[in-house]
Amino acid sequence: MEIEKLRQMDTMIRGWLRAVRAEILTELDDPLTVQEKTSRKDLVTNIDKKNEKRFVAAIRAFDPQAKILGEEGSGDHVTDMHGHVWIIDPLDGTLNFVKQRDNFAMMISLYIDGKGVLGYIMDVMRNIIYGGGPQLGVFANERQLKAPANLALRDGLLGVSGPMLVHDKYHLQAIDAASSGVRIIGSAGIEFIQVLMGKQNGYISHLMPWDFAAGNVLAKELGLLVTKVDGTPVDMLSSNDVLVSTKNTQKDILNMIR
Amino acid sequence: MEIEKLRQMDTMIRGWLRAVRAEILTELDDPLTVQEKTSRKDLVTNIDKKNEKRFVAAIRAFDPQAKILGEEGSGDHVTDMHGHVWIIDPLDGTLNFVKQRDNFAMMISLYIDGKGVLGYIMDVMRNIIYGGGPQLGVFANERQLKAPANLALRDGLLGVSGPMLVHDKYHLQAIDAASSGVRIIGSAGIEFIQVLMGKQNGYISHLMPWDFAAGNVLAKELGLLVTKVDGTPVDMLSSNDVLVSTKNTQKDILNMIR
Repeated sequence: MEIEKLRQMDTMIRGWLRAVRAEILTELDDPLTVQEKTSRKDLVTNIDKKNEKRFVAAIRAFDPQAKILGEEGSGDHVTDMHGHVWIIDPLDGTLNFVKQRDNFAMMISLYIDGKGVLGYIMDVMRNIIYGGGPQLGVFANERQLKAPANLALRDGLLGVSGPMLVHDKYHLQAIDAASSGVRIIGSAGIEFIQVLMGKQNGYISHLMPWDFAAGNVLAKELGLLVTKVDGTPVDMLSSNDVLVSTKNTQKDILNMIR
Repeated sequence: MEIEKLRQMDTMIRGWLRAVRAEILTELDDPLTVQEKTSRKDLVTNIDKKNEKRFVAAIRAFDPQAKILGEEGSGDHVTDMHGHVWIIDPLDGTLNFVKQRDNFAMMISLYIDGKGVLGYIMDVMRNIIYGGGPQLGVFANERQLKAPANLALRDGLLGVSGPMLVHDKYHLQAIDAASSGVRIIGSAGIEFIQVLMGKQNGYISHLMPWDFAAGNVLAKELGLLVTKVDGTPVDMLSSNDVLVSTKNTQKDILNMIR
């Protein structure tokens, strides 16, 4: 796609995110309508649903031929990655949003014929949009990000899924011991930000496409790897046990789980 | 102590914290001198030591008769809690500081004859001082905090120590399952802040006195409980497995570990 067109889209998408954020902030002290999805720890609120409707409407107006894959079902039933596919998580870390009103994200990405073109993760409460793509570079608001250092597992912190750590999936307890330590934030978007910024050298969790689609675009642009935990490619249309990490950390983890 | 005197001390201590923060920020991009203490995951930097010297000098000038208990040893060898005892953690979450330059705290507290009089936790990167005491109330910068809701274990998030979770100490994995979920931040100060703010309904970790002395003062003032994990009183002069939580969460946890 032409760079000028991408720049316009970049400005437009950042505008959508800021507008939805402004709306969330005005409603932050209002009572939420909270529903359980698969369990009492897997929640959806009226805000998740309203945000998704807003993003879907904006995308439909701008790119009416595109397919939209969204967490809360306002989009399309997407069965392949041909053409323009927008993938959106209108509120990532809903449990944090409900319990903390903090540490949650919004994510939007655009894939064209399966290739990541644009990705955006907004840390809502810190008011920072991490976004861009292979032609634009990656920015935290106005500041361009450099590739983080290619740290080995032992030289950095690792974000993990709490349940995967407790159940020792993929020898995660040994991986934890071999790292500098594990952290659990409870939002895939915020965890990806930590890795993009070099504050963690990896993150492992069971994720749906909308949890990692934006981060996938940004991480690759910064020289990071996004794969399944066994090192094979992620599937953009189903759930995956995902590892995003530096190259050296991936090598160390693959050596421990094989 | 007279309220007017306490207000003056409150202003003074917040000034110390802001001054030391300003110095940290100017050095944030400089190379650190990092030393291992008990292990490669237990670090101390030149900044920890310099901060402690600054706090100790400020306290000595203001309160020359007082005893000072500090993490890095610039203070006194304190063997009892009689009289004025200042307890300081010049940089809490040193591993986060080294790896992230984020999610670390500074903590100062004053106990008189064993009773907590003033406590301060500064989230350095977010530039918020949580401080006060039983006579002043508790403030996040200028905003007075209300007591958080008395949530039960199942209705909120629980901060935990990674090693204690992995080793299932105190049936922590069952406690995790009974809660809304666990979080691992890696700084006792930041974890205490989460509980003070009602963003987590508890936090469990193995802590030294400087890790919990300030939080202890603030938590109690907000109707929270700070005890050993078995519900008995903490010892201010040695390490403890500490539980800070709402009353209802403590009850739920004690029922599960007894």
